[in-house]
Amino acid sequence: MARTYLTPEIHRKRIERVQNLLNDDGLETFLVFNSKNIFYLTGLSFIPTERPIILILHKGEVNFFVPSLEIDHVEHQVPFVSQVFSYFEYPDVKHPMYHLAENLMKELKIQSNKVASEAAGASGYWGYKGPSLEDVTGLKFKQLPDMIMDMRVIKEPEEIELMRESSKWAARAHKYLQNFTELGANEIDVTIRASTQGSHDMVQELGDTYRPTGFSMFPAIALYRGQIGPNSYFPHALSRGLMFKKGDTLVTGASSDVYGIHAELERTMFMGEPSARQTELFEAMLAAQDAALGAAGPGVRCADVDKAARDAFNAKNVFHLVRHHTGHALGMEGHERPFLDIGSEDVLQPGMIFSCEPGIYEQGLGGFRHSDTFVVTEDGIEITTKYPREISELIIE
Amino acid sequence: MARTYLTPEIHRKRIERVQNLLNDDGLETFLVFNSKNIFYLTGLSFIPTERPIILILHKGEVNFFVPSLEIDHVEHQVPFVSQVFSYFEYPDVKHPMYHLAENLMKELKIQSNKVASEAAGASGYWGYKGPSLEDVTGLKFKQLPDMIMDMRVIKEPEEIELMRESSKWAARAHKYLQNFTELGANEIDVTIRASTQGSHDMVQELGDTYRPTGFSMFPAIALYRGQIGPNSYFPHALSRGLMFKKGDTLVTGASSDVYGIHAELERTMFMGEPSARQTELFEAMLAAQDAALGAAGPGVRCADVDKAARDAFNAKNVFHLVRHHTGHALGMEGHERPFLDIGSEDVLQPGMIFSCEPGIYEQGLGGFRHSDTFVVTEDGIEITTKYPREISELIIE
Repeated sequence: MARTYLTPEIHRKRIERVQNLLNDDGLETFLVFNSKNIFYLTGLSFIPTERPIILILHKGEVNFFVPSLEIDHVEHQVPFVSQVFSYFEYPDVKHPMYHLAENLMKELKIQSNKVASEAAGASGYWGYKGPSLEDVTGLKFKQLPDMIMDMRVIKEPEEIELMRESSKWAARAHKYLQNFTELGANEIDVTIRASTQGSHDMVQELGDTYRPTGFSMFPAIALYRGQIGPNSYFPHALSRGLMFKKGDTLVTGASSDVYGIHAELERTMFMGEPSARQTELFEAMLAAQDAALGAAGPGVRCADVDKAARDAFNAKNVFHLVRHHTGHALGMEGHERPFLDIGSEDVLQPGMIFSCEPGIYEQGLGGFRHSDTFVVTEDGIEITTKYPREISELIIE
Repeated sequence: MARTYLTPEIHRKRIERVQNLLNDDGLETFLVFNSKNIFYLTGLSFIPTERPIILILHKGEVNFFVPSLEIDHVEHQVPFVSQVFSYFEYPDVKHPMYHLAENLMKELKIQSNKVASEAAGASGYWGYKGPSLEDVTGLKFKQLPDMIMDMRVIKEPEEIELMRESSKWAARAHKYLQNFTELGANEIDVTIRASTQGSHDMVQELGDTYRPTGFSMFPAIALYRGQIGPNSYFPHALSRGLMFKKGDTLVTGASSDVYGIHAELERTMFMGEPSARQTELFEAMLAAQDAALGAAGPGVRCADVDKAARDAFNAKNVFHLVRHHTGHALGMEGHERPFLDIGSEDVLQPGMIFSCEPGIYEQGLGGFRHSDTFVVTEDGIEITTKYPREISELIIE
């Protein structure tokens, strides 16, 4: 049976790793603000609003500080929670950060030089304003903004299984997208139809083993995002409700949400037989993607993967049509560090997951980009997005 | 004809207002980082990634600093742009912020004491890291983090028209949601079906006058987010793929994206005839919403609108079931300042738009919350979300 969610044991292990890092630094307390980092460590998903929600790791205990509307929601979702501190509302008569200061000082008795936080204070999201942790406690907090994100760079075997599963449903939804695309149809309609059908299949076939995180409205998506015909020239076009016409170059996208993990799958397709120039640019793009995938592996510099794609584009004399680097890490976020970029100083390591998506863009004609997701393994790479890449399989008749 | 988008003239006027504020402060240059604020001022929509995208208002000129993949996209979308500065990629061999510093110092010749910015530097989104503006220029930047958000608090007549239009399509999609809800159905399927049908109607009926911003996959949405049966007790439940059962209390949500403006419409509904307790709590909620809407109007304190709802709940002896305040401003964001909250010091002014959504939550039974969107007018309020509110109209047979 495929893995479609993580158990509390995985979350406990992650927290243990954080505790060990804190112990090494002589720290007793760590405040985590980022909602994805909180989900990563505890499995708690929630809707981030102006109301601060904070995970407080303290001397091996898992505590939370939340508004009243989330108290029971935390206890319902996190089996290993110790204490849930709370405040009624934001802004309220007394600002939540002063409630927090009381909990930290009087209940947890946190100490200067032994307390760290991911941010100086709650973020200014959706209208929130407030004082910093140091303002309300008078203590000095060590800032560790990257600790959890740095942990997330190397994916565990369980997370890699989620990525395989996400890739499978991305490909399923993309197949529907390809099938539903036809002359005169509107990109919004085709996107919604394909995502609906792909999501329906996913919910039906996974049954009770599917645990939605609530992060995504569609379990699986396959979409057009305005990269249709000449508009596909814009690498980050946005959906404009365009209609498909004969001769269009199309660039697609597909993913699915498997316990917060999202694969990335994109394809270049054509409305009818491609012209000589369309074919030429498609083949150059494919050669660059092959070159980058061929170069990737454990111990290889990220910069050298980008360089392999650049060299391939240069060999075809189309480097002037390049508008971005070769790829980025991904997992719970759409893009993560590190980047497959000529300027990166990072090295590919087993457990890292990347997109590989070198692209070229010709004004008036369109964009040419496939994106595939790959995992770095002990002895090479594993491409998780299994979908046809050859031009003959990507023509809409 | 309904208004479904804003013209460049509106954006120019907004920029003029910013320029006047800057002039008053003796400032020549202002750097805007927030993607929604950039859309608000220029109509440019884009996908925020790790690559910094900055609007540079300078001596009356509208300039941008963007990665190479967005250069033509900016020129395509913003008719009144003066200069588009660019860098190839992030991270690249030379960090984008050093490119920016060169553009600011050599091309625009910005000066200390005459330059302001919305943030100290680009935000750490999707793996970005970088130096601050002051680090790379050696100049002192005045920080104006709230200037544009403060402008956005009072909506212009044109924006209020967009909100009316958004409310109309939210109601249409919600009608489908109510119609499609039936015993044994899965919340994810019903959500997608209703949003698909509502979006289809919207795209068809608006035709060429609809200008998607690309912010939303569905033009119109109507959804369940896990607030089904006992799980509706969690005010911010998340979609879990629940099935509808007899006796369930349901809390819904609906909206639509009209040029980035989103209405908020929520309803409490029941699967079959409600019990005496369900009816009692529903009527208490309705009385509180009536009280809050009755109290709201120009010159009224936000705190007093919240107090009206609290008093109504107290009168029914259910205040212990309250988990949040009465509402929040909204527009381009799901929640905005100010808040209808006992602790707010703000006063309702014509052109402000709020949700009104007092709620109560009983463990084991469920949640009771309607949300409606209202505009503060010169002499009262206008409710833009027109949808039945009475219990008799919200029972799924």
